[in-house]
Amino acid sequence: MYDIAKVRSDFPILARQVNGKPLVYLDNGASAQKPQVVIDAVNQAYSMEYANVHRGLHYLSNLATDKYEATRGKIARFLNAGSEHEIVFTTGATEGINLVSYAWAAPRFQAGDEVVLSVMEHHANIVPWHFLRERLGVVLKWVEVDANGDLDPQAVLDAISPRTKLVAITHMSNVLGTVVDVKTICDGARARGVAVLVDGSQAAVHGAVDVQAIGCDFYAITGHKLYGPSGSGAIFIKADRMAEMRPFLGGGDMIREVTRDSVTYNDAPMKFEAGTPGIVQQIGLGVALEYMTSLGMANIAAHERSLRDYARAKLAGLNWLTVQGNSATKGAIFSFILQGQAHAHDISTVLDKRGIAVRAGTHCAMPLMQHFGVGATCRASFGLYNTVEEVDALISGLELCRDLFG
Amino acid sequence: MYDIAKVRSDFPILARQVNGKPLVYLDNGASAQKPQVVIDAVNQAYSMEYANVHRGLHYLSNLATDKYEATRGKIARFLNAGSEHEIVFTTGATEGINLVSYAWAAPRFQAGDEVVLSVMEHHANIVPWHFLRERLGVVLKWVEVDANGDLDPQAVLDAISPRTKLVAITHMSNVLGTVVDVKTICDGARARGVAVLVDGSQAAVHGAVDVQAIGCDFYAITGHKLYGPSGSGAIFIKADRMAEMRPFLGGGDMIREVTRDSVTYNDAPMKFEAGTPGIVQQIGLGVALEYMTSLGMANIAAHERSLRDYARAKLAGLNWLTVQGNSATKGAIFSFILQGQAHAHDISTVLDKRGIAVRAGTHCAMPLMQHFGVGATCRASFGLYNTVEEVDALISGLELCRDLFG
Repeated sequence: MYDIAKVRSDFPILARQVNGKPLVYLDNGASAQKPQVVIDAVNQAYSMEYANVHRGLHYLSNLATDKYEATRGKIARFLNAGSEHEIVFTTGATEGINLVSYAWAAPRFQAGDEVVLSVMEHHANIVPWHFLRERLGVVLKWVEVDANGDLDPQAVLDAISPRTKLVAITHMSNVLGTVVDVKTICDGARARGVAVLVDGSQAAVHGAVDVQAIGCDFYAITGHKLYGPSGSGAIFIKADRMAEMRPFLGGGDMIREVTRDSVTYNDAPMKFEAGTPGIVQQIGLGVALEYMTSLGMANIAAHERSLRDYARAKLAGLNWLTVQGNSATKGAIFSFILQGQAHAHDISTVLDKRGIAVRAGTHCAMPLMQHFGVGATCRASFGLYNTVEEVDALISGLELCRDLFG
Repeated sequence: MYDIAKVRSDFPILARQVNGKPLVYLDNGASAQKPQVVIDAVNQAYSMEYANVHRGLHYLSNLATDKYEATRGKIARFLNAGSEHEIVFTTGATEGINLVSYAWAAPRFQAGDEVVLSVMEHHANIVPWHFLRERLGVVLKWVEVDANGDLDPQAVLDAISPRTKLVAITHMSNVLGTVVDVKTICDGARARGVAVLVDGSQAAVHGAVDVQAIGCDFYAITGHKLYGPSGSGAIFIKADRMAEMRPFLGGGDMIREVTRDSVTYNDAPMKFEAGTPGIVQQIGLGVALEYMTSLGMANIAAHERSLRDYARAKLAGLNWLTVQGNSATKGAIFSFILQGQAHAHDISTVLDKRGIAVRAGTHCAMPLMQHFGVGATCRASFGLYNTVEEVDALISGLELCRDLFG
């Protein structure tokens, strides 16, 4: 049984008020709140167990190293990676995808080589490939989504040509909530000898991920969306792809030996982790993943599915509101516009006055906005602690907006 | 008056024991402990004031943005930058120097172009330039230090040739404690049209820094050494150099517009800050800098000078121990070896049993180790909370090591 009251009590911020109203936090797609166990772990690390990692031999350094490195194994298990050596710590999905772009793609791609991506990618999974277009003449090939926001995996595979070197695809749209059949894409791409990078920023938050079952080459996650600290994250990189990568950031820890004339590098994954890392953030991320798995990823998914169903039905009843994306796979993420003059930013401001936090803008997905022909939208994105009462509060707030702007 | 007992009480970890002994933390060169105000700020941010920054319009997002962006101004004042627009947030000095290497140097340097650097650089200020040697054929020119560990600024300037594009130099050696006359180097380099990057990882911790007086183009700092959270940091980049830089990491926030065929970039410094940043870490760094300035950078420097003098005299009395570096400018950082068979790692282990945390190894400065012809050394590095009694504890521990291994 998923005890939502108990879950909510784990998150101190959910007890606060905003603008005199109880906080209704529906901006989880941008970043999630943190349970007390994560806050406590961060506090404990700084208060009693802090030192730099890897290079010390003293008690606190060994203690911090053990806790920090333990997170690598926790991430490997969370993603069902074959080995924790396939986990590279990053500051989030953005750094992870840039790592692949700089360390794997840039030295291998040539002018005319292609990257296939969907129109619903987040900018983090677009701009690094635009860099390769600008700098190397790489070609970006875009695959459409249909009116429901669904992406046909076969359309992705059909876009692959002999010049295609990579498919870069989201596992779950941060705007539409669409879950992409990345396994079918990976199966087909592998048969064609093409690598696949999956942006798991959203998907890993809302259900169990198995990178071995998916068969992807790269799978990026970001800790701050996973109820972990800001600045935490990781990317799964299949061992044979990691062996193809040159170093990215240079500095301490990632080297074996440095002389005036030469440098040799550490073994992977350390080869890709330069300098003092986000020690305490990653320790906190490990605790966040344990928190999620203690609730049960299937339970979280079921809870959010019920929120999605409830919100979808309620929103469908508002005939003056248009939701982008209505895939059967859709998660509890709703991007919408009010028909008429109301601007998304104004709606967000009205909702905020009622304590309801939603996002307004282009959600780092401008090509998708262009695809749907909309400027800015509002987005309500749900997490493991949200409730049907909060859906009701949103609906009530939207009805007020309609009265104000309609 | 510098109230050391009060200062120590600000750091909760200093009250703890290690191996049954009071902690004597002398590994500040690797990372510093955190005052309660920083821990509280982190706790408050996660418990009551958390949301993603920049892209939200709701209360918590605005609040987090205000606190996060306030740190930019605090860093600008801490370094006396002309404008906070010259401050780019990073995860530490390593990312900052790599930013300069990838975004400024790599697109501008050609085979045969030179980077001048000292033999006492940290790997963070070596490996990014080795990348350019490996990838572009850039030439690294090394400037020696003398037997005292001093670096003659004129020797640095004499190493500049018409092919020199950059001087990359530490402001303070993390091994020898030598403070480098970076102002003279910058004056001379500027007269020759050569840019200077200063690695301020150590120097900014131990005294006031004025980047305008120094006249450097780039000045990198790292928050975790500045009594701030892990994963925090920044780099000062002079406005005209920033204008010469192309983007580094691609993703959200650093763009103005993204289409399928094109991308335009945000104004600097946001152009160089991709994706969700280290929100809470940077908020904590701002509090750490305020903590330091509330003590007074001159007071911190004076306190550490007295520690240095005391430790230097005590260590000089041990004729079976050799200290690397004896510059008149030396800070309170002591790298040493015991004459005879005792390995640095064994010394560190013995000291640890007495609760004394020092580092043993090559301190991410292998070329310097090669210069002095030593393998590994022990390093005791002091911070604003250390005491003469802790120096005594170190000396007593070293005498034990001599008895054990001598």
